Amino acid sequence: MRVLSGIQPTGRFHWGNYFGAIRQYIDLQHGNESYYFIANLHALTTVRDKKQLEQNTLDAALDLLALGLQPETATLFVQSDVPEVSELCWILMTGTPMGLLEKCHAFKDKKERGLTADAGLFTYPVLMAADILIYDADIVPVGHDQIQHIEVCRDLAGSFNFHFKQEVFVLPKSKILETSAKVPGLDGEKMSKSYSNTIEIFEPVAAMRKKVMRIKTDLRPMEEPKDPAGDHLFDLYRLFATADEIAAMDALYRRGGFGYGDVKKALAEAAERYFAPARAKREELAADLPKVRDILADGARRARKKASETLRRAKDACGLG
Amino acid sequence: MRVLSGIQPTGRFHWGNYFGAIRQYIDLQHGNESYYFIANLHALTTVRDKKQLEQNTLDAALDLLALGLQPETATLFVQSDVPEVSELCWILMTGTPMGLLEKCHAFKDKKERGLTADAGLFTYPVLMAADILIYDADIVPVGHDQIQHIEVCRDLAGSFNFHFKQEVFVLPKSKILETSAKVPGLDGEKMSKSYSNTIEIFEPVAAMRKKVMRIKTDLRPMEEPKDPAGDHLFDLYRLFATADEIAAMDALYRRGGFGYGDVKKALAEAAERYFAPARAKREELAADLPKVRDILADGARRARKKASETLRRAKDACGLG
Repeated sequence: MRVLSGIQPTGRFHWGNYFGAIRQYIDLQHGNESYYFIANLHALTTVRDKKQLEQNTLDAALDLLALGLQPETATLFVQSDVPEVSELCWILMTGTPMGLLEKCHAFKDKKERGLTADAGLFTYPVLMAADILIYDADIVPVGHDQIQHIEVCRDLAGSFNFHFKQEVFVLPKSKILETSAKVPGLDGEKMSKSYSNTIEIFEPVAAMRKKVMRIKTDLRPMEEPKDPAGDHLFDLYRLFATADEIAAMDALYRRGGFGYGDVKKALAEAAERYFAPARAKREELAADLPKVRDILADGARRARKKASETLRRAKDACGLG
Repeated sequence: MRVLSGIQPTGRFHWGNYFGAIRQYIDLQHGNESYYFIANLHALTTVRDKKQLEQNTLDAALDLLALGLQPETATLFVQSDVPEVSELCWILMTGTPMGLLEKCHAFKDKKERGLTADAGLFTYPVLMAADILIYDADIVPVGHDQIQHIEVCRDLAGSFNFHFKQEVFVLPKSKILETSAKVPGLDGEKMSKSYSNTIEIFEPVAAMRKKVMRIKTDLRPMEEPKDPAGDHLFDLYRLFATADEIAAMDALYRRGGFGYGDVKKALAEAAERYFAPARAKREELAADLPKVRDILADGARRARKKASETLRRAKDACGLG
């Protein structure tokens, strides 16, 4: 199978990104032909600052590599290094009914909240379709919020193939990431940048510890036994701890007579330990940026090879040959 | 000055296109650095047929070269041969307010007539802006209907420069083509493909003659003197005839005692003579298509050189470098 994942460099990745998506993305590199891109063209709709976008793009590459993406196995590249995708975007645009885009929720939500939208947000699903179709992706792992965009992509691909009477595009399937792991934020709600309740994967250990100590807890007295189910501190701990540690903590909760401060300390330690190899790897990579740039350049070369074949088919089919 | 003209390959060019625009476009190659492109990416919004679009694109190149475009003076190329323009299109898209596009008349008109529009028509002005800005065009000769799109282009360029604090784009000026020459069609109305009243520049001479003989005239008797002013047959004749011929025909109109058939014959002869050198040149080119393709390939090379410089500036400015 050919798998494609894009990730927007809109800021540093947090625990929610990792357990909700990145970990699964990275796992898919095994046993598949896989393409991973850092979607800086998409990010440009929101990150309107040169230095910020450059830094975010580099950080995303470092993060993904540090977290286990293997550039010899997977193709990792920056979206804007593949000009073919912008070309395909326009080609698809000419066959995209306005109604299809008007229904898309990112645009609709913004409009309903009375905010002014840019054409970049409105036509975002067309660029996303180009991203997917240009690599002949069979499988696109996505969260529930992206299913609609995959449907738009399938619509555009199907009607292009039908209209020009050729199987130019492969119709991709969504692979829905079941976030069995709930990732609560500092306030106990879903961890998300928009709630400002995140802990970043690679923030300095001291800062991470401080944040963990700030996680909201309830006011039940120390001695009271507690049910670990539904306790967000326990839910976080479960993500990082070993099976034995989880069992021990479970027993502690049920017994009572402990403080949340102890759980937080244990959580911070487990999280630090969990990401330690990635953190070391990231430091190593950050100290050798030319190597990282080579990896991205090589990824772009491989991606362009595939992309230019698909673009050629599309251009030939519609008379832009 | 740097001048840019694009022409959509949506069908064969007619007398109205020639006297209304093409002739002026071609004149501008002298004394300017000029870029002429065949806008096949734009045409794709309406020409959804491979063979048709390919043929139209080639025909447009043959027509322009036959009508006097000098490839050693002007840069002639096919729009889709410059991928940089699609890249810039997306970059501009991310900074285009929806309201700016909703106001544009091509889209508005279609919507008001209750027709469904494609995103290609809606975002057309963004691609047009990319076309203009990527060649640092100072001057864009346009008809009145395109002034709005040049304003959109200036808006997008100005706000990009302002936002990213760099003079990345040159703000172009419109040069309005004053169609002092009114070009009536077969029915006396303005010659336009949408009225099906056109005579194509290079249609076979016999077909052209037949069409001329079908031009609508009034029923005033032969002997009646007529005022040539406002007579559409005379207006057409004036486009092709020499000053002496025009004076003689003027006298004939005022004297009366002639038939419209005679004027039509004179018109057909003058038109045939007028376009004879271009027709010969076109046949010569059509017999040597590899040469035409070389001209276009060379034009694309030159255009890409300029386009890639501008794209580089734009990408650097916003952090896609």
